[in-house]
This record gives sequence, C-alpha cells and structure tokens, in this order.
Amino acid sequence: MKKLNTTPKQDGFWMPGEFEPHDGCYMIWPERPDNWRNGAKPAQKVFTEVANTIAKYEPMTVIVSKNQYCNAREQLNPKVRVVEMSNDDSWVRDCGATFLVNKKGKLRGVDWCFNAWGGLVDGLYFPWDSDDKIAMKMCELEGADRYRLDDFVLEGGSIHVDGEGTVLTTAECLLSPGRNPSMKKKEIEKKLCEYLNAEKVLWIPRGIYNDETNGHVDNICQFVKPGEVVLAWTDDKKDPQYAISKEAYDYLSNVTDAKGRKLVIHKLYTPKPILITKKESLGVDSVDGTLPRQAGDRLAASYVNYLTGNGFVALPIFGDPNDEKAIKLLSKLYPDRKIEPIYAREILLGGGNIHCITQQVPARRHE
Amino acid sequence: MKKLNTTPKQDGFWMPGEFEPHDGCYMIWPERPDNWRNGAKPAQKVFTEVANTIAKYEPMTVIVSKNQYCNAREQLNPKVRVVEMSNDDSWVRDCGATFLVNKKGKLRGVDWCFNAWGGLVDGLYFPWDSDDKIAMKMCELEGADRYRLDDFVLEGGSIHVDGEGTVLTTAECLLSPGRNPSMKKKEIEKKLCEYLNAEKVLWIPRGIYNDETNGHVDNICQFVKPGEVVLAWTDDKKDPQYAISKEAYDYLSNVTDAKGRKLVIHKLYTPKPILITKKESLGVDSVDGTLPRQAGDRLAASYVNYLTGNGFVALPIFGDPNDEKAIKLLSKLYPDRKIEPIYAREILLGGGNIHCITQQVPARRHE
Repeated sequence: MKKLNTTPKQDGFWMPGEFEPHDGCYMIWPERPDNWRNGAKPAQKVFTEVANTIAKYEPMTVIVSKNQYCNAREQLNPKVRVVEMSNDDSWVRDCGATFLVNKKGKLRGVDWCFNAWGGLVDGLYFPWDSDDKIAMKMCELEGADRYRLDDFVLEGGSIHVDGEGTVLTTAECLLSPGRNPSMKKKEIEKKLCEYLNAEKVLWIPRGIYNDETNGHVDNICQFVKPGEVVLAWTDDKKDPQYAISKEAYDYLSNVTDAKGRKLVIHKLYTPKPILITKKESLGVDSVDGTLPRQAGDRLAASYVNYLTGNGFVALPIFGDPNDEKAIKLLSKLYPDRKIEPIYAREILLGGGNIHCITQQVPARRHE
Repeated sequence: MKKLNTTPKQDGFWMPGEFEPHDGCYMIWPERPDNWRNGAKPAQKVFTEVANTIAKYEPMTVIVSKNQYCNAREQLNPKVRVVEMSNDDSWVRDCGATFLVNKKGKLRGVDWCFNAWGGLVDGLYFPWDSDDKIAMKMCELEGADRYRLDDFVLEGGSIHVDGEGTVLTTAECLLSPGRNPSMKKKEIEKKLCEYLNAEKVLWIPRGIYNDETNGHVDNICQFVKPGEVVLAWTDDKKDPQYAISKEAYDYLSNVTDAKGRKLVIHKLYTPKPILITKKESLGVDSVDGTLPRQAGDRLAASYVNYLTGNGFVALPIFGDPNDEKAIKLLSKLYPDRKIEPIYAREILLGGGNIHCITQQVPARRHE
C-alpha cells in the first residue's frame, strides 16, 4: 500500500466517531512479563473475553507475536481472525493506525509516530520500534494507503473525535515534554485538524489521576454522540480526582464544539480508588527500563475507558458499587446497544483499559 | 478461524484448477543467506519482479519476516499487500495453504504437514516449524476455516489438479521415504482424493533430473486445462532428462483422467543444462544442516514451473534459445492470457521457480 505525501484534509478523508458503524476491530495479544503479571496469563484471559465479546458484533482481528501465535489461536473464539505481527506491548489504541474514510468507500490510515508515551523523557518502555510499525502493518492488512507522520508523536488514546469536526484531547498529554516539545499548542491543533480532518480542538486540562499515559483523554472523557460526552466524575472532594474532574467539567461547560453547539455532559462516577496489591506487584517481572508495578500504587480506574461498536458497548467494571451505576447510565445513553460489562482489573493492572486495547476500523461508506 | 475435523469431500469443498479464476496470490520474501546468494539481494530483486507482475493482474500478498518487512515494503510495488509472518524460507507453494472452494462462495484451506521436503530423512533444512505454520496463518488472513493434517506430509508443488477430479503427481516424491513412509500408494491416493475432493490420481514416475524436492510434479508437468498438459521435454538422448521425460510421456499417453479422457500432451522443451557457477556458489553461506550449493551442480531448470493467473502466465526464462520456443508454445496454449516472461535464474539457484514461490487463492464462487 502507498505512503502518501498529502494530508487527509487535502484528500477528503476524515476520522468518523467511534460510535459510527465499524467494519471491524483490532487488538494486540498481551505477553510482556514486565508489564503483565504472571507471564500475562491472567491478562490473556481477559483480553480473550474482550475479543470474543466484540467478535459477537463485528469482525475481530487479534495481532499476536510469533511466539504467542498458537496459544492465542487456541484461546480465542474461532470467529476471531489471528494475525502474526511483532509488537512491544498490547495497546493498539495507541500504537495502531487511526483509520479514516472518504465519501467514495475508501479507507486510509494515519500512522502517527509512536514513542511509548514519552520516549526518552518519560516513556514506559524501551525500545518501541515494533510498536511504531503496527500502524503501517495494519494499513497493509486492510489494503489502506497511509499518512505517515515522522515528525509528530501521538497516541490514538489521546484523542477522541465527534466525526463532525471536533477533536477532544488533554493538555496534560499533548503538551507533555515527551511528545512534541518543540511545537506550540496552535501548531499541534493545526496538525490534528489536518490529519483528522477537523475544525476545532477542545483541550481538557488533565486526564485521570495517576494515569501513566500523561492523562489520555480516553480515560476521562468520551463522545456519546456529537454534542454529548461522558466525563469521569467523583463527588469525593478529598480525592485528587475531584479537582481534575471539576476542572474538566468547568472547561467543557464553557466551550462549544466545531458546529457551535454547547456540550451535554454526563457524569460517569469512577470506582473507589483501586490499588495494586502486594501479590499482584510480585507477579510482574522487575526489569530496568520499564515502569515498576508497586504494591499500593493507585490505578487509573475509569468507566469512561469503554469501547463502542456495532450494537454494543464493551464496558470495564471493577467489582465496585459504581459498576451498576455505570451500566445504568450507559444503558440510558446507548438505548440501541447492548452493554457488555467485563471485569477488567487485569487490564487496569497493565496501565489502561478496554478502550486502550482496541482500535476500530470504521465502515467504508458508499454514498 | 476454525480447525475442522471433517474432510473437504465430506463438506463439498474442492481444489479448482490453477487456470481457473483467482481471488489473489501469495508469495514469501526470500532472505536466508544459506540458500540465497549474496544475502538474498539478487533473489529479492527477481521475487519483486514476479510479485509486481502478478499484482498487475490480481491481488498480491507478500509474506515477510519481521526483519525484512520494511525492506520488502520499500522494494515492492505499492499495489502489493505486505504482511508480516515468520518463515524458514520462501516456497509458499510447498508450505502454504492449498485453498478450496465450495458452491456457496466459501473458501477453506488444506494445511498439510510440511517437513522441508523430507524431514530428518532428506529434508533441505532444519528446523521447519515456522514454515509449517504458514498455511494456518494464510487461512486466518483469508478468513478461511482449515483442514489440518498432522499425519500426512505433502507440499503443494507435488500435486496439480484439473478441478474436475484428476490429481497429477510423481511417485518419486509422494512415495519417497521422507514423506509418508508407512503409507501404501493406495492410502496416499485415498488421502489426496479426500482432501482435494478428487476421483483419480495420475502417477508420473519421476520429476525433473536433479530436482532437490524429490521430483515435484510442478517442475515437470502442468494442466493447461482439463484433459491437456504440458510436459518438460528434451530430444537429447544423452541427457538423463530424456529417459525421465520419455517415461512420463509414455505413462501419460496410456492413462485416462477422472472423466475418462485421454490426455493431450504438449512437449515443452527444457533449456540446455544450467550449472551453478563458482561465483554463485561462493555467495551462499555455508551452514551445516542445509543443502550445499556447489559450483558445477546442475540446476533443475524447466519452463513448466510457470504460474497461471487472471489473464496472465508468469513464465521463467533462462537466457536460453528455448526461451522463445516456450513463449511461443504457451502463447498458443493460452490465447486469452498475456505471457509474462521473467528471467529467473536467481530463483532457480535457490532450488525452484515461479510456480514454487507462488500460491493462488481461487475465486470464491457464487453459483
């Protein structure tokens, strides 16, 4: 497939909202034992549950390394397509292609530069070269030509779009010193608008408390549809999350989107603080150069980290009283979709959740 | 995708003739320096020419290892889809899936046991575990369920079918001690008929002289269409090839196919004997456990090792006076296809030719 030298905006390609129809979904099989406890076996079980759940609704492809290929094939539902691809970890939202469509039924991908959430400044592992090639290889698989940005670092989890010209992001992440330190905010906005084919960027100040991605937006806020978002929330003023959520709420209450609409904001209550246990910590290989997983560390738990797809919402739950509250709210917000709650503590232990480990392929359109 | 416990014959799936319409074609990028001289760079150039030629006529996928991925992507025409897949060498005809169709537009694959042309008896390299997984991974890519034979060794290059019930093979290969030594000829016939959904097996005694595959049929004889074959031929009675070709001619002249037809046999003259030069030999890494490539060794050169696809014939040529004769004969036999001659000495040096390095995906039918 081609590497293009134009931009999506020039070519009439744009990123649709995640809530729009999909042609399929990708995940990467987890395996690195310095991030996933007990040789990633508990994580593989939950990833399997997520993949099999999505496969009930849309074509599901799981990327897996050579060494784990047969194991993944054995574990996953036969409906899931398994493809070999080398990788450094399993966050396809962040290293994978951002797929775009045009009005003629064509699919293309944006292949952002990936540097493991901060490169040599505050990246989470080294090296990350295999991950940085995932987007290209996904484009090849899909037969999609590709916009490669060698000079712009971005992870898919740091943006959401409404498909109607609005990009949602966080300043904490996109202005972090490990991404594009030489670029001004306005330049970053321009890049986003050019490559997502959008008109306006909304900047939530910070992401979820203690989120090791430098506060990806996909853990704190998500579009339900154009003009409507869910925001991670707590009423507990002693929780450092409160100030973060309040700040985001105030910001979002006072902006308009690309179409000039005020946003409807739904508060999605977080679970009570979830900490890594000693047992969980001991299961993770201790390796110089990767983030330690220490007992007592607070995890960045949030229900906002869900995936929407064709007729479903794959929702992480945590065994918390607020699980029910989240299911109830999303059932109301997505009346035409089945809410699929998945107990996702194992994904959270690795540093993210269901949205972070999935990447949708939007439906090719024939208008 | 599913691993099936039934057989194609039971399920109504069959292997169409190669000359029938294709949905696409696969190749594997060459790289092992103990088979391909000069770090496989000359071979990669010719494989690129083959892939780019096929891509003019049908969807082309090239399988490539992690290490060679970016180089292959750079070399190949952008129309070619490049997918990562670990491999031991580049003979997708032999280790790849044999694809089958049914009348409902479904595709399935046969995943024969692959043991590098003879396993521990007279195999050409060790280990071969990555190659043995290629068929499974191709089926996954194509979304095709799979018949896996753990107990039956076969390479795709050791069979041809007419799509109407006839299988063509060689006794030299299929009865060799490195394949299925515990099986009687009748049992092998039964297996072939069950998994290709055929009725009759034709046994040419031997393949091309000095063919390291134990005489694969695809180097000596190929169906042009049902009831009609080309046979590698020489008039030089001093050439050991003469007796082999004569024996095949006599055999084929005296059999009928599954439909009871006598075969029309076209003699396709081989080039003059082609020997490895000293320079070529010196370019190959010397490694214990792989076949040495020694100066003066005669190569198994044959024009029969061509690929037919949608509107084309990809034909190996050798800089021999018989090149023109081959082009002329095939032009006559395939009046609706473009003959695409490719100078293929580099492929031959590796032990095979264009047919050996390609594997077609038959067109899904909707009858």
